[in-house]
This record gives sequence, C-alpha cells and structure tokens, in this order.
Amino acid sequence: MILSKGCSTLKDLVEGAILRFKYKQTQFDGIVISYSNGLVNVKLSSGYNMTIPVDSMDDVELRGTRKITPTETRKEKSDGGKKVGFLATGGTIASRVDYVTGAVKPVLDPAFLEDSVSNIREFSLDMDLMDPVLSENLTPNDWVEIARRSLKLLERNKRTIVLHGTDTMSYTASALSFMFQEQTGPILFVGSQRSSDRPSSDAFLNLEAALEFSRTAMGEVGVVMHRNISDHEAALHRAVRVRKMHTSRRDAFRTLGGKPMAVYSSGTARFNETPRPASESNVLMDKLERKVSMVYFHPSLEPDDLGQILNDRRAAVIMGTGLGHVGSRFYGIIKDAVNSGVKVIMTSQCINGMVDMNVYSTGRELQSIGVIPAGSMLPEVAMVKSMHLLGNYPEDDFTGLFLKNMRGEFNLRDGLGDEPI
Amino acid sequence: MILSKGCSTLKDLVEGAILRFKYKQTQFDGIVISYSNGLVNVKLSSGYNMTIPVDSMDDVELRGTRKITPTETRKEKSDGGKKVGFLATGGTIASRVDYVTGAVKPVLDPAFLEDSVSNIREFSLDMDLMDPVLSENLTPNDWVEIARRSLKLLERNKRTIVLHGTDTMSYTASALSFMFQEQTGPILFVGSQRSSDRPSSDAFLNLEAALEFSRTAMGEVGVVMHRNISDHEAALHRAVRVRKMHTSRRDAFRTLGGKPMAVYSSGTARFNETPRPASESNVLMDKLERKVSMVYFHPSLEPDDLGQILNDRRAAVIMGTGLGHVGSRFYGIIKDAVNSGVKVIMTSQCINGMVDMNVYSTGRELQSIGVIPAGSMLPEVAMVKSMHLLGNYPEDDFTGLFLKNMRGEFNLRDGLGDEPI
Repeated sequence: MILSKGCSTLKDLVEGAILRFKYKQTQFDGIVISYSNGLVNVKLSSGYNMTIPVDSMDDVELRGTRKITPTETRKEKSDGGKKVGFLATGGTIASRVDYVTGAVKPVLDPAFLEDSVSNIREFSLDMDLMDPVLSENLTPNDWVEIARRSLKLLERNKRTIVLHGTDTMSYTASALSFMFQEQTGPILFVGSQRSSDRPSSDAFLNLEAALEFSRTAMGEVGVVMHRNISDHEAALHRAVRVRKMHTSRRDAFRTLGGKPMAVYSSGTARFNETPRPASESNVLMDKLERKVSMVYFHPSLEPDDLGQILNDRRAAVIMGTGLGHVGSRFYGIIKDAVNSGVKVIMTSQCINGMVDMNVYSTGRELQSIGVIPAGSMLPEVAMVKSMHLLGNYPEDDFTGLFLKNMRGEFNLRDGLGDEPI
Repeated sequence: MILSKGCSTLKDLVEGAILRFKYKQTQFDGIVISYSNGLVNVKLSSGYNMTIPVDSMDDVELRGTRKITPTETRKEKSDGGKKVGFLATGGTIASRVDYVTGAVKPVLDPAFLEDSVSNIREFSLDMDLMDPVLSENLTPNDWVEIARRSLKLLERNKRTIVLHGTDTMSYTASALSFMFQEQTGPILFVGSQRSSDRPSSDAFLNLEAALEFSRTAMGEVGVVMHRNISDHEAALHRAVRVRKMHTSRRDAFRTLGGKPMAVYSSGTARFNETPRPASESNVLMDKLERKVSMVYFHPSLEPDDLGQILNDRRAAVIMGTGLGHVGSRFYGIIKDAVNSGVKVIMTSQCINGMVDMNVYSTGRELQSIGVIPAGSMLPEVAMVKSMHLLGNYPEDDFTGLFLKNMRGEFNLRDGLGDEPI
C-alpha cells in the first residue's frame, strides 16, 4: 500500500473516511464503511460496495470524513433491489487482451458488469475483489480464502456469485460445496471461456443467468455456464457433478450422468429438480487435509512410482481403468499403503459411468485389500471430499462418510446413465 | 507343459505330429504345422489353425505322425474363404462367469465364435491364443508381444483381429498403430463390455462388424465396438483417436473430435473417410522407451511431487487444465526437468478439444521453458507416441516427430470440434 496526501497511517481508514485510491491501476472514489482483518469495505461513488485487501490499495488519499448513513451501511444502491455478493477471484471473466503480446492477461475490471449484463440493475452489488488469479494457480489455501470471503458475503446478502477462472472452477466449487455444511443462499460460480472484451464472450449471458438462478433461495453451490453454443441458454450445474469437458467451447461445462439442475433460456430459469433449500444460518467447516493425491493409472506405471506417490499421504484417488481397476502388480504396494493408514479410493479414467468393483475378480480383490470404490463420484470430487473429510472428521468415520451422499456427489440414476460426455 | 503318452520330449513336436492335448482345461485334437520360438501352430480337427505357447499345453499325447498336405500348410479351411488372423489376448470378450463367486473371470473359449458370429464361416481362421490377461494387467512388454504376434498373423493372412480387454484397449491399439510403420492389412482390436455368455453381450456384433471392416485392404490399426446401445450398429475407430468414455455402456468407445472412420449397420460397412491403404510389406518398429510417465495435474499437487515423478524419466505427459496449464509454482521444476533432457508434454484433462498454449500468458511461459504442446492429441496417445519415438529415433528428432501427424493422431478439424463426449 502506498499512502498519499493526507493519509499517513492506516488509522486514517476509519468509518466515514472519504478516500481516493488506486486499485489495479484504476482510480476509485469512495467512503469507508468498515475496516477489519486487513479488508476495507468501501462504498464507491458508483453506488456499489467493494471489499479489497488494504495492502492492494495504492496512492490512498484522505479527502475528508463524514458520518455514514444507515442506507450506506446497509450496502444497498439507492434504487433498492436485491442484494448480491460478488466475489471476483480472477480468470478469463475478469481478463483483458494484452495488446502488446496478444495474450490474454488477468486484469480485473468490474466496470464491464453494469454496461453488459442486462439484469444487473435489478440487483445491488456488494463486491469483494481479490487479487486476480488464473485458476490453475489456485491451491487449497485459496479455496479456504474463497470460502471465508463467500461466507462474509452470504452473511451480508442472500446470494453470492463467485467469478472464477474455468480451469479449476469445478475443483473450487466442489470444495466450497463440502465446506458449507449449511448455507443461507446460493453460491454460484461463473466463468467465461472467451474474455469479456470479445464480441463472442460468454461472460455476460453467464452472469445474467447466474443472477436469475440466484433469485431461488437454495442451499447449493453451483456452476453457471453456457448450456450450448447458441449464446441464449445457460445451465446451472451442481458443483459436485460438473466437469470441464472441452478446452475451448463455451458449453465446456457438463453435468455428468444426468441433466443440469436448471436451465436459463429466454430470460427464464427452469429447474429440472428441486434444489436443497437455503438454511437459517451458515456453517462453514474450513479445514482441508492437504496430503491427498490423484494418480492416473497407465500401463507404463511401475509399482515403485505408485509407492512414491502414496508415501506420506493421508489419501490417494486413483483414476483406474474401466469399472475401477489397476494391474495386479500394484496390489502389494496398495495393501501396504492401506495398512499404514492411507485411504485409497478408486475412480475411473472413463469419467462417465460408475466404478463397480464387484463385476471382475480383480475389482473384488482390490476391495478385499481395502480400496474404497467411489461409485459414480467424479475423480476430482473424490479428491476434494477426501480432503474435507480428513480435515474435519475422525479418521474412523472416513469410509462411512465417503460413501454417504452428502451433497449430491453420487449420481442416483442407474449405471447406464446418459450418453458419455 | 505336461507331457503324456507317447510324447516324452519337445522334439516330438515335429511337422505332421498328430496330437491330443489340453489347453486351458479344454481338450483339442490336431496336427502340428510348425513349431518355432516356443509357439506351436496346430491345425485343429475343427479345421481352424491355432497358435499357442508350447508351455501352456498340458497332457500332450503323441498319437502318430503323417505328412501334412499343402492345403493344410496354407492354413485355410477346406471351404476356402478369406483368411483372417485371430489373436486372443484375453479380456471380457473371452470371459465366462465364475458361478461360484458370481464374478467374471478370464477363461479363454474360442469355440463361441463359430456358433455366435453370423459371418464367421465366410472366413478361415488362423488363431493365436495367448495366455488370457485382463487388460489392466498388460504392460508395454505385452504391447511388444502383441505386435510381434500380430505381425506373424499379418504375414500369413491379409487381416488380423485382436481380442482384447476394453480397459486398456486404446493404449495397446495406439501402441501398435505407431509400431507398425507399414502394414499389409488391417489390425482390428475387438473387445466386449458384457461377457459372451450373457444375452446382452456385445461380443458377437463387434466381431461380425470387425470381420466386415477387415474386407477393406487398409493399413490401419483400429478399434471396433458398438456405435450405440441398439446392438445393430458398430463403429470402426482409428486407434489413435479413440478413448473409452464410459465404464459400462456397450458404446463406451468414442472417436474424439470427429466421426468414427467407418460404421457397420444392417450388414454393411460404410466408411466416413478413406483409410490409409495397405502396404506391400510389414515394417514393425518394436522398441519402446519405458521411462515415460503420465501426471494428472490437480490443485493439491506440490512441486516436490511433480519433481519426484519427473525424476529419472525420459518423457512425461502432463494432463493439465483447460487449454494446457499448470500452476506457475511448477515452472521451476519443469524447467529443471526440461534442461536435464526430459521431454515434457502438455495435454488437457478436459480430454475434448485441443491444447493451445498461445492464448494465455501462462501457456506462453510454459512453452518458453520448453514444454511441448500436444494439440488435439489424446493424453494416452501422447504417452504411447513418446515411448515409440524415444525407443526408435534419435532424441534430437523428438519434438519434430512428436508434432508431425504420423498416424492421424492429430484431429485436423478446427478447435471447436464436435460436442464433447
């Protein structure tokens, strides 16, 4: 933080302080509503609230102080409307093309929202802008930070929208799904596959749809992205059943083994199923065990390689072949790991369908040495769930809880399922 | 091998020896056509030829000798017909239910072919029965063995069908695709998702379709499986573009990013594209570098974990996120690996679409430290191709050859591609 004219100390950031400051090279004017835990909540002259880390403010100029009004502390725009928390974490949805190199760089620019999203004026925004991060750089530590900030936004608003890069969006969304034991409203992740300065950007429809879906009082963490390439329909996917299934298509995100929870088309949100209702209060369990691995089985894998990967882990998710298999040459090393306390979970690299380790003798043998079959749970979700369970529950409860359908992570349809996607 | 009446030594297995023996608990009668390299080629009393490892014959009884006729050495059934090599490696297509435990166990039984496959009498079979193996147990050593046996069958016949478990069928098929520099006819892999003693088995249609596809003189390695769940249509997939995309559906195998090479429906094979023509002779390059890994990137992966996996490897295929990314915390360890000679290849865990490392600054940075983008090449195919290139070509030629479309492993359509599957 660079302090500037009239602002010599952080103590100047009291409630009612009128500030001019720079954030990510953009100048803002506003009045401080609160300052705690290193985060400043500022009511901007645009009428929006913004919460940013004090460290990221530059050229902070104190231009006066005044008593803030009850309306301002309620964090609503003067035209009223529904309150929505907006957490910007980075990603393409907050990206701009670098015209020097031609590459897309993460440059946060929240201003595009008002100009481009048709229904946004029906909502009053409470924005929390994190330092923008491309989602491949996020770690479980960031999941915790995103969960805590989402909690604060949910406490102030009935709904929260998280802007997030698409690369690891399903990992983060499913992490929040498990971390929020109870939630008072929807937490909807929105990304875009094309940056918002391109005419073909999917950012605007995705945000418009997320705002519409957010009107439903549900206790769900979801992902809202294009349903097809028409630019007129978006889908709400349950966080624990969605996966990015294409590198570039705008409709890359798919609910596996069933329909999306809801579809937005021609201004209307239609639900395919009844979502979990919102709770009275929020309960966040934000501990995560970090020592959990994912392993992609392949024919050139050697037992020693797997041994190294399992070493010093509390759990490992194997992406096996077919119904949930690995070569019998690995049974010894897996048995050793299980006996030393590692939770070894079997998923399938087929991605669609479900692990069934009762069909072949090899699957039965793997179960007999203690491998836990993940059924229809997606590999990434199995990893995140393991991190959640080992972080928050007694180790003895692991298998029982892992096999319990806690957030809809098991697909309850039959094994045949829909067409593979 | 257990020797029995009248057969005291392997030297008795001369051309023309009339034998009764057991193979996998089943008794066979036949006459020895040749014996070399530990493999016995026997003309069975059923009229079929069978090639089996001498070690796997039990209760071998010498019942006489006679001069074999030229017709017999031509290895054709007396009714003539098209010659087809049949290599049985194991898998569900050669499975039977174990009625004690209820599980499916690998029990080779070639006899079901004649009873169940409508067009099989139009062909004369030259069978090579390997010790049956569930395909998750196959290693690159087995790929070499399967390639060598396929070569022998191709030398004797114009086409070869390989019965194989579905779990790793696409790995083995793509390995053979690269290993066969030239081939005199099709090598078609056939599996089944339901064992052949079940009414719902897909084995028979898949074999029927493979025989029809094999009438075309093409120099391709393919995979033939159900096209949909109707049990009336099958598809021929190019080995290097196919992936098992569902754990249990009969139409689990899909050509990614395009149509299958050909479709079999109502007794007719229709090609969607012109296959590579058959060559005048077979050229097999059967060396494979074993020290090639696959790594599934995930947010809880640590640089040290990746360092361990890259250590002592000649190549590693990373399944990154989105267009081909990993967190920037891995750049150092990847750069070190590249500088020490490891070929680091980037694919995407999205599976559909293509890696494009020019879109984001992170992708450009990964390229600048020497990571090779695999484009639309499937992760498993990138691994197999790396093993082939490092085994047979000078290391300096690696990148150029890796980026060359050698067997159709690059999808030449635009990045949008078909619906993700």
